[in-house]
Amino acid sequence: MTSEDTRCTTAESGTYERLLAERITAVGPTDPADEERAWARLDSLTKPPRSLGRLEELAARVARIQGTDHPRVARKVIVIAAGDHGVVAEGVAPYPQDVTWQMVANIAGGGAAVNQIASSVGASVVVYDVGVASDVSGLEGVVVRKVAEGTRNIATGPAMTREECAQAVLVGIDAAEEFSAAGCTLIGTGEMGIGNSTSAAALTAAFTGAAPETVCGRGTGLDDAGVSRKVAVVNRALEVNGPSGLDPLGILAALGGLEIATLAGVVIGSARAGVSVVTDGFISGAGALAAIRLCPDACDYLFPSHLSVEPGHAVVLSALGLDPVLELDMRLGEGTGAALAFAIIDAACSVISGMATFAEAGVSGAGE
Amino acid sequence: MTSEDTRCTTAESGTYERLLAERITAVGPTDPADEERAWARLDSLTKPPRSLGRLEELAARVARIQGTDHPRVARKVIVIAAGDHGVVAEGVAPYPQDVTWQMVANIAGGGAAVNQIASSVGASVVVYDVGVASDVSGLEGVVVRKVAEGTRNIATGPAMTREECAQAVLVGIDAAEEFSAAGCTLIGTGEMGIGNSTSAAALTAAFTGAAPETVCGRGTGLDDAGVSRKVAVVNRALEVNGPSGLDPLGILAALGGLEIATLAGVVIGSARAGVSVVTDGFISGAGALAAIRLCPDACDYLFPSHLSVEPGHAVVLSALGLDPVLELDMRLGEGTGAALAFAIIDAACSVISGMATFAEAGVSGAGE
Repeated sequence: MTSEDTRCTTAESGTYERLLAERITAVGPTDPADEERAWARLDSLTKPPRSLGRLEELAARVARIQGTDHPRVARKVIVIAAGDHGVVAEGVAPYPQDVTWQMVANIAGGGAAVNQIASSVGASVVVYDVGVASDVSGLEGVVVRKVAEGTRNIATGPAMTREECAQAVLVGIDAAEEFSAAGCTLIGTGEMGIGNSTSAAALTAAFTGAAPETVCGRGTGLDDAGVSRKVAVVNRALEVNGPSGLDPLGILAALGGLEIATLAGVVIGSARAGVSVVTDGFISGAGALAAIRLCPDACDYLFPSHLSVEPGHAVVLSALGLDPVLELDMRLGEGTGAALAFAIIDAACSVISGMATFAEAGVSGAGE
Repeated sequence: MTSEDTRCTTAESGTYERLLAERITAVGPTDPADEERAWARLDSLTKPPRSLGRLEELAARVARIQGTDHPRVARKVIVIAAGDHGVVAEGVAPYPQDVTWQMVANIAGGGAAVNQIASSVGASVVVYDVGVASDVSGLEGVVVRKVAEGTRNIATGPAMTREECAQAVLVGIDAAEEFSAAGCTLIGTGEMGIGNSTSAAALTAAFTGAAPETVCGRGTGLDDAGVSRKVAVVNRALEVNGPSGLDPLGILAALGGLEIATLAGVVIGSARAGVSVVTDGFISGAGALAAIRLCPDACDYLFPSHLSVEPGHAVVLSALGLDPVLELDMRLGEGTGAALAFAIIDAACSVISGMATFAEAGVSGAGE
């Protein structure tokens, strides 16, 4: 029996993995006819056709997702998943690991950037602990769904077992479905996890074939020597784990983070619920890429919010085939870009749903 | 006496022009020390330094304008100036001139794109009639400050007299100062005027020396033949009016629109009042360029909201030396881009004013 066979056997016998496979089959594509109806309405509104550019494209995509030419934005939430990374042992992050739980506490207390931006655009913020190495259960506003106290070091072996990984993905699916049931029509992804840009780089390299040096950036602030160390670590992680491109769950388990797996689940769960999902930067993007490899139809529901300064993010977006809404040289994470893009998508829905048509307003058309 | 001398005499004797010159002298530059204090605070907040990119730059600029490292966004308003253009006689617009008053009515009634976007970001919208060829005084929500019933044809002579132009600028200055007094901390510019992209192109060419073919675009939807006609019209307008680069009011009067002059005034008035002013696309941008040539210190208060598809807008932004916040392939006008950018600037102010510092949150710094 080869190791591939073992992996298959494990896959079939794993409880969480079986459950995940069932959930994924329930995701279907959206209907292009709904988007055509949206464009017909957009072209009837009192403006030169297509003069709102990308704003109209966003409106048409949300219309397609919601199956109506009057899409609406009701409640908005940023789902932040938090987890620690064994790979910090390799010296790939300038901040100590304790910053993960400290920032979880800061977010729970309303002091982080994402709190301010979310509040400014009328969105709520919820933090899920799926893998923080410390106990954060006493913090109000943190949903504890801990799968493990951090991942293992990807430079020496797999970050998670397949079962741990599938369990973390399921946490995200459940979260998205719960928020949809509670009336959320825009779900954003965000993360907190010291070391997770190394994990995101390894995942991006494994999923796209990109060379590690093209997807490793400064993260929270590495110097040139730190970036070189990170590239070497990603190279070792790919060698040690030898992930197969035909096994997306295997890649995610070997190289991912618990919080990244949960964010992949948020994308899949949003698609299951028929809700637009807005991804943040590079790390959230790596989670979205994992989601799309696990469940390609989920791509219809996905909106990358911005282009991060982290070089791997452009590689992720290219692999997803989607353009970002914003380009503001941001690289913070936490869901900050997703929250900002909420404002633009919200405005796009207001335009298509609230504007008057030429006929309604008694405005003459071109050439009249 | 040469014609230059005549112009000077006119300038000195004009009531509105004298009044305008007085108002402009009251604009002063902002203090770089306020921006330094803002950066010190930004770097103390719980995020890797500068990791919010352009968002931090926006926060620092607003902080400098407001003279505090805790800038705030209170009320937000889009000031839309409307006026007609004699140059439509040259066939430079695909829509009939009646669309100007029809769209003023549509905006007053809440059916236009700008109403939806402004409402979505929590801003109000006010329309000023400074030059609509029809009577719109019966429309609720329209402020009538009509200087003339449209401009004259720039292809055959000056659009306005210097006095008409100065009067239109003063309307904008007064408007901005009134909104500031009413508690607005963000003022956006927008416009409505069939034919005004031709006027904006002529102004941009005159102010920057750019060739007409590099600043003439499709406007509301010209075909290639229409664009060629527009280039020819702008060339004639520059020849006929022979504007002097040393006489910004003369250029604005000869080639501008009444609504463009008012938007120049909104920029100057915002600067006088110490309020951040957010310009929309190409036409608002041409107004801002006129403002900065009349009153260079006003540039400190200026935020271009987005990069329009109209090719002349990039020329305007380059002349202003400012980067746009958004790039969404928009070309509608009305203040739609300014309203969208309000959301981003609002979020930037929330970040600098509301986030916790490392010390306050008990979060470890890099290398600790």
